Amino acid sequence: MRIATFHDHGGPEALVLGEAPEPRPGPTDVLIRILAAGVNRADVLQREGRYPPPSGAPKWPGLEVAGEIAAVGEGVERWAVGDAVCALLPGGGYAELAAVDAGLVLPVPAGLTMAEAGGLMEAACTVQSNLQAADARAGERLLVHGGSGGVGHLAIQIGIALGLDVWATAGGPERAARCAELGAQTIDYRDDEFETTMAAAGGADVILDVVGAAYLSRNIEALASGGRLVVIGMQRGARAELNLGQLLTKRAHVIGTTLRSRPLAQRRAIVAAVEEQIWPLVPQAVRPIIHATVPLSRAADAHRALESGTVFGKLVLTTGD
Amino acid sequence: MRIATFHDHGGPEALVLGEAPEPRPGPTDVLIRILAAGVNRADVLQREGRYPPPSGAPKWPGLEVAGEIAAVGEGVERWAVGDAVCALLPGGGYAELAAVDAGLVLPVPAGLTMAEAGGLMEAACTVQSNLQAADARAGERLLVHGGSGGVGHLAIQIGIALGLDVWATAGGPERAARCAELGAQTIDYRDDEFETTMAAAGGADVILDVVGAAYLSRNIEALASGGRLVVIGMQRGARAELNLGQLLTKRAHVIGTTLRSRPLAQRRAIVAAVEEQIWPLVPQAVRPIIHATVPLSRAADAHRALESGTVFGKLVLTTGD
Repeated sequence: MRIATFHDHGGPEALVLGEAPEPRPGPTDVLIRILAAGVNRADVLQREGRYPPPSGAPKWPGLEVAGEIAAVGEGVERWAVGDAVCALLPGGGYAELAAVDAGLVLPVPAGLTMAEAGGLMEAACTVQSNLQAADARAGERLLVHGGSGGVGHLAIQIGIALGLDVWATAGGPERAARCAELGAQTIDYRDDEFETTMAAAGGADVILDVVGAAYLSRNIEALASGGRLVVIGMQRGARAELNLGQLLTKRAHVIGTTLRSRPLAQRRAIVAAVEEQIWPLVPQAVRPIIHATVPLSRAADAHRALESGTVFGKLVLTTGD
Repeated sequence: MRIATFHDHGGPEALVLGEAPEPRPGPTDVLIRILAAGVNRADVLQREGRYPPPSGAPKWPGLEVAGEIAAVGEGVERWAVGDAVCALLPGGGYAELAAVDAGLVLPVPAGLTMAEAGGLMEAACTVQSNLQAADARAGERLLVHGGSGGVGHLAIQIGIALGLDVWATAGGPERAARCAELGAQTIDYRDDEFETTMAAAGGADVILDVVGAAYLSRNIEALASGGRLVVIGMQRGARAELNLGQLLTKRAHVIGTTLRSRPLAQRRAIVAAVEEQIWPLVPQAVRPIIHATVPLSRAADAHRALESGTVFGKLVLTTGD
């Protein structure tokens, strides 16, 4: 089968078409014929050699797909050949086929295109699991950094659907306006210091952050008393000074999480929670915005676009070329 | 009434006897005739000018007392004059009388001396609220730093009574042995690196830390995957580098908390939870160890002793001199 992979770590050009043997599903797996594969920042990090796949996962990138069930393992009862599904993968989504544990698979929500479904799972699981880790409750103030990103634009929608008072940062008036259309109160970080704005609003009860070190102290400043900062990315650094005095005074939590490295049982539980809590919201209240679809053969272009910072929402690779 | 107070910030000698008007209980308060007042590290910080009392609280130190109800506000139903009680105070315990919200008062547990009861509330509330903030569950591994301290020696007992696998650090073989008598597995920090020992044991699910900055990175190293570090003191510094990469990889939580600055409703809820969950364990499974009782007039000596680092358990001031 065709895959998009890299032989050496490097820039977007390192990503090229390749061939791999068709995967064979284990007894609790399904085999998915992939029609759409979401592109994530983690894929860029993996290409650069900064985010190696967990052991046992395919070496080519791709954390989420949508497509049709092509085969099922002998222990799988829920799925049948031909079912339209999306799945959360530990890697290997940039391909025509993927074998994945049946517990990491959900039906394509009615009303979504395959491209939309291919760009939904990773962000839905990330947002659901982290709002849960932060114990976010309806009525609380949620600050989403990178509101125009693949995770961010869905975090806004999910947060609002769950009854949170959602604020989002974005770079520039156009992107801020699009976040506002999704229902967030917006902060253009080029013009305003988000910690000042949030403090004036009473402080954020929960922050979803992809920036990391450069925002650590400012994020704690932006928290309300009892607030929870959830760091899910480190786009601008990993090491920063933490002022414990500030943390104690606010009775704040700093939570770091990743999704891919979790034990299978935890990832299954997250997918089950997403089906229960997020799927009913799709597509009326929660719908991925597909910035563009890109053929698998041009995965390098998709990475170039993502790295340019001009994407709003998700990029999705398609295998139909 | 007599109080032990300071006129200027300074060393233990700054703490002297003084006089203050008798406090008058508000409608939801009780007035307590104090027989025993626990001494806490926070009192030392307050004396040094590094931990000012919250607004509305008396200016003299003292976060916990035991004694008898001397008067009750008109809205108080639970308590009557003569009841033997302990109480959590925002300050003002180094005195003969204190007025306190009736919701911050509990009965002296049967079988405890007044001195023991006077040294119980602050630690019980601290441990209960922080194990709850950390969502500590029976069977999990709890590391208590400063196992011989006022909070630490009760954290060991409470942790064990709640079914946790308790480990404790202590300085020197004698103090470690006493922590072991309380049921903890011990680490003498003069001989061993606690993070190495904990990692070898599978990592700590929860850490209760009073050390702060100097232990931040080592504490995260000592955590198990999904572990929660609760920082409740900063005996060795407030600012330290946080490695978010380490935090994300472990899916760890860093939680800072204080008790005194919490809104009244939260402190009431903590005291109610302590009555429900900790009081039934006293005195069979949980009993404060009183290192010494010291007359109120010699409060300075009590601070000297606490700062010397030779106290095991609690120091308690008594008003009966």
